[in-house]
Amino acid sequence: MEKLRDFMQRRAPGRSNLSTKRKESDELEILSGLSNGRLCGAPFCAVIRNSDTHSSDYNQLRDIPRPGHADYTAGVKYRGYQDIAGGGHFSGRLTAPLCVAGGIVKQILAAERIYIGAHIEQIAGIHDVRFDPVNVNNDSFEQILLNSIPVIDQDAGAKMEASIHAASDSCDSVGGVIECAIIGAPVGLGDPMFEGMENRISSAIFAIPAIKGIEFGNGFECTKLYGSENNDSFHTDGNRIFTITNNHGGILGGITSGMPIIFRVAVKPTPSIYKKQQSVSLSKMENTELSIKGRHDPCIVPRAVPCVEAVAALAVYDALFDMKKYS
Amino acid sequence: MEKLRDFMQRRAPGRSNLSTKRKESDELEILSGLSNGRLCGAPFCAVIRNSDTHSSDYNQLRDIPRPGHADYTAGVKYRGYQDIAGGGHFSGRLTAPLCVAGGIVKQILAAERIYIGAHIEQIAGIHDVRFDPVNVNNDSFEQILLNSIPVIDQDAGAKMEASIHAASDSCDSVGGVIECAIIGAPVGLGDPMFEGMENRISSAIFAIPAIKGIEFGNGFECTKLYGSENNDSFHTDGNRIFTITNNHGGILGGITSGMPIIFRVAVKPTPSIYKKQQSVSLSKMENTELSIKGRHDPCIVPRAVPCVEAVAALAVYDALFDMKKYS
Amino acid sequence: MEKLRDFMQRRAPGRSNLSTKRKESDELEILSGLSNGRLCGAPFCAVIRNSDTHSSDYNQLRDIPRPGHADYTAGVKYRGYQDIAGGGHFSGRLTAPLCVAGGIVKQILAAERIYIGAHIEQIAGIHDVRFDPVNVNNDSFEQILLNSIPVIDQDAGAKMEASIHAASDSCDSVGGVIECAIIGAPVGLGDPMFEGMENRISSAIFAIPAIKGIEFGNGFECTKLYGSENNDSFHTDGNRIFTITNNHGGILGGITSGMPIIFRVAVKPTPSIYKKQQSVSLSKMENTELSIKGRHDPCIVPRAVPCVEAVAALAVYDALFDMKKYS
Amino acid sequence: MEKLRDFMQRRAPGRSNLSTKRKESDELEILSGLSNGRLCGAPFCAVIRNSDTHSSDYNQLRDIPRPGHADYTAGVKYRGYQDIAGGGHFSGRLTAPLCVAGGIVKQILAAERIYIGAHIEQIAGIHDVRFDPVNVNNDSFEQILLNSIPVIDQDAGAKMEASIHAASDSCDSVGGVIECAIIGAPVGLGDPMFEGMENRISSAIFAIPAIKGIEFGNGFECTKLYGSENNDSFHTDGNRIFTITNNHGGILGGITSGMPIIFRVAVKPTPSIYKKQQSVSLSKMENTELSIKGRHDPCIVPRAVPCVEAVAALAVYDALFDMKKYS
Repeated sequence: MEKLRDFMQRRAPGRSNLSTKRKESDELEILSGLSNGRLCGAPFCAVIRNSDTHSSDYNQLRDIPRPGHADYTAGVKYRGYQDIAGGGHFSGRLTAPLCVAGGIVKQILAAERIYIGAHIEQIAGIHDVRFDPVNVNNDSFEQILLNSIPVIDQDAGAKMEASIHAASDSCDSVGGVIECAIIGAPVGLGDPMFEGMENRISSAIFAIPAIKGIEFGNGFECTKLYGSENNDSFHTDGNRIFTITNNHGGILGGITSGMPIIFRVAVKPTPSIYKKQQSVSLSKMENTELSIKGRHDPCIVPRAVPCVEAVAALAVYDALFDMKKYS
Repeated sequence: MEKLRDFMQRRAPGRSNLSTKRKESDELEILSGLSNGRLCGAPFCAVIRNSDTHSSDYNQLRDIPRPGHADYTAGVKYRGYQDIAGGGHFSGRLTAPLCVAGGIVKQILAAERIYIGAHIEQIAGIHDVRFDPVNVNNDSFEQILLNSIPVIDQDAGAKMEASIHAASDSCDSVGGVIECAIIGAPVGLGDPMFEGMENRISSAIFAIPAIKGIEFGNGFECTKLYGSENNDSFHTDGNRIFTITNNHGGILGGITSGMPIIFRVAVKPTPSIYKKQQSVSLSKMENTELSIKGRHDPCIVPRAVPCVEAVAALAVYDALFDMKKYS
Repeated sequence: MEKLRDFMQRRAPGRSNLSTKRKESDELEILSGLSNGRLCGAPFCAVIRNSDTHSSDYNQLRDIPRPGHADYTAGVKYRGYQDIAGGGHFSGRLTAPLCVAGGIVKQILAAERIYIGAHIEQIAGIHDVRFDPVNVNNDSFEQILLNSIPVIDQDAGAKMEASIHAASDSCDSVGGVIECAIIGAPVGLGDPMFEGMENRISSAIFAIPAIKGIEFGNGFECTKLYGSENNDSFHTDGNRIFTITNNHGGILGGITSGMPIIFRVAVKPTPSIYKKQQSVSLSKMENTELSIKGRHDPCIVPRAVPCVEAVAALAVYDALFDMKKYS
Repeated sequence: MEKLRDFMQRRAPGRSNLSTKRKESDELEILSGLSNGRLCGAPFCAVIRNSDTHSSDYNQLRDIPRPGHADYTAGVKYRGYQDIAGGGHFSGRLTAPLCVAGGIVKQILAAERIYIGAHIEQIAGIHDVRFDPVNVNNDSFEQILLNSIPVIDQDAGAKMEASIHAASDSCDSVGGVIECAIIGAPVGLGDPMFEGMENRISSAIFAIPAIKGIEFGNGFECTKLYGSENNDSFHTDGNRIFTITNNHGGILGGITSGMPIIFRVAVKPTPSIYKKQQSVSLSKMENTELSIKGRHDPCIVPRAVPCVEAVAALAVYDALFDMKKYS
């Protein structure tokens, strides 16, 4: 439970001065699934209550949807009956339960010596160094946690923080890229066609709001290489098989190769900005201006880092236990 | 059936001189699901037999896995029992049944005025123009089919063909990017968290071998924009709601917005190349050289274009029919 | 909400003097899914807390499993980590959330003029009259609710109550049969092979603890009839198709026929009895005697009646919404 | 393959003079999933072609549905587009692929020392002896196969055969009960609520056409017993835990207890009989008489015996492999 609380803390706002002024205590009440501090086989159920809601901030959004947000699409889908408070079903708040699940599963995976870490690879065009795709290890992950925002290169981190403050000052927001590595996964995870590791991870990762792209290994860069440059040749030291480059990002044919699994995701700039925007009054079917109230992060990338780890943990765990079926 | 045959033909090799010399007649034998030329409610089952197999080409691959291919990972997963002929379960041949399913579903969607088209956006660094993300329409798709390879700009297409031939001449291969657009989808497709349209499409798209990344709307580019630049403001003409930019790629909060759905996928260069490569003899646990025999495409991007359309059709169809449940 | 509360009340203990002395207030706290008194499209989540638990009553059961109960099988499955309090994951308490789900769905079905009712067909060998399988209607269901236990024939009901009291007096328990009818379901619900209505209903019904059998229509009796006796011939009045007998119980080939769906389930006598029983001390691997403490119903059949309706509602709802997909 | 062929033979018609005169060679063509005689990890796909079809026999049934059959319900569901030949999607022929799957899985289970056998417990009111629910073993199953119809008591079998012939002679049909036992299943198979062993088995068993009921252990009989009579007390010899009666049929709380799993299913008399019956012309919406042509079994119970075993094997296999996930 201590570890889970630490992990949740990384997602919580208020960790630095970068995020929303909402107080989200993220107090976890466990309803079932735990007996004497151990998972007992019954479904795990826990509640995180919103302790500091300002529903009135959201009232206008049922009529005037925010650009870039689900207000309009969910309004049509649910014919106006959707819960609008805090973004309802589409709130970033829903990443809290994702992190509860992922935080528990990370502990189970760690017991099998599978570790997952992520960092900000880019914010507003400012790049961190990337993970070494061959030698990334658990120490790399622990170093990241020591910094005020989750990066490898502190200088890049400081510049990112400055860019977030600048965006905030101009009532705007910025996005970025998160890179994630999974190490220690055995060879053979993932199943053909629709259940490969890329399918599983991407299928899960888009559960995090604001993610608009994902790439594995060297990703879109591989499209400009020759096959002879992109292929990672196999080598052996007599004991194990490995590659000395890792363009494939630890996945071949949807199945893990034993090399680190590497992927990066694109996070769009927070759509809720304080600048005036054009939108539509649905009740009047008229063009109108919208000024968003409420409390919103000028950049959700730092808080999304543990979410990406959590979701990756869920995907790996599922594949791992599917493999165990056949052994 | 005529339309399905035309669609399958786009995936088949031998359409141009760009692809493998294998003769794949892709003759479809329908076993069930069709009665008097109509889907009858029973599961649709069809067989495409491999008429021109050279299993012996694959014999060495059980011992010496090809870099960049699933030979090694599948070998570990299935403990050496996997079917190795033609790449077995991991062969590009398996995109043929994907195209059968997708080709049928495309006809069902067309009856609901939902259309899907794709083109090569890039091969080996040579770019085609992109779809107009707001005004792309069915005519755009039909124009693409008139060219010798599926591009919008014929000049770019000619350069791509030259680059493929050059790669082939040097016993190498090239990759690229495919862009796909889905038009006519109603507002409201896609479900929260793990069943959003990005989840559904990406979960399906990685069923196509060699795909290593996917991005929706302006994708990774959005990470360098301000929220005020990236948000697509809503507008109305009194009758309908629309956006006049489409950075969001037709999906907000995982739900379709009524604007064209746009995504791009990264296709890695064909891993099976004729150049000598380093690999490992699994039986001897020794490093060794590998010279691949058999017949392989120097670039699979052109033939992957209809596969991407097929898979997109399946994802949209599923979401559409899930939505109908509640109406 | 009022209707849901009434429905829950039928499952709750303390309705008559037949059941356990536990106080289960069954207070429902709704956490999500409801906005302004309407389902809003987000998952519905509610909590029913156990307000009157005596965990200590269950302590000995981890070592000495009750005959006829899941203590032993769950103990092996979960290797002793299972939550034992109140029977944990295997407690009859878990029919309360089943009834919440079913109680909501019954209201949705009623809006489509599909009604579900059940009664006790037999307790300890005392039989109620059966539903008229052709003419059973919503009035039949409402009549049943007026009686002190859910039967059609009040005299039979009085005898059943006496038999339950007698069993209770001798520290023993009795079982019975519940008959359920679903009326108003359209023709065409249910899908071939594993998704037929019998599959769906039976798959759901065994979620209720203590159920050991299910039969549809005339069930096991049909095995002694000739085909010419058992077949229900079709008739028409020019407007609709119907049968004038209903041995098939409203389901042909797994698909609803438009006639009332009829099924009966066998409920075993409550395994938790106060009589001394033989069991085993798992820690000592010795035979031993067991005297069960705690508060247990001498007959759960009356309280299981709304559970059977709830589960039937869920199965019909699923099939109904699957059918809507294709229309 | 040899064992699969033997098993399929038990389902095939023509084994005795009891069944249809259709020639169903049940020739199996394996399309995928087998490499060098072993399952290779790719999906197993095989085709059994109908070699002796008389589609014209079925032409009238699209207009005049057979009582007791799916002609009417499927016709409404599929709006007249359903494949009608041989009963199409609702033909008893579809138990052949069930037996292929089950026949393979039975071999996998046998390697884990889990065995499954079934016999006719009753036809037309004539009863076989039941399995000894505690001591039934693999020898019991092999004895049954030596008889001309699958029974334990040959005399009962002879009377059953006579009753089938008599029904056939009067252009009628008879039904019966099949009893199935699964031995050697480890303690702990089955999961709470909707995934218990009773849920899994019954959900699968109704895939076999004509089954109208299922009961586990002593089934409906338990409803007339006291708890003290019905509970199977636990015992130990110091090494293992067992019960000396088996009213629970090897399943407690949905989870296997290690005792034989016992269930019985009700098979209705074949609805396709040669006697004249009342039905409706759907095109004219008029009452009419129906004389069924074609070739139909006067009793499908003997041929359904291996189908019940096959389906039980599938359910156990699924539960077994789900359990392995967590070990």
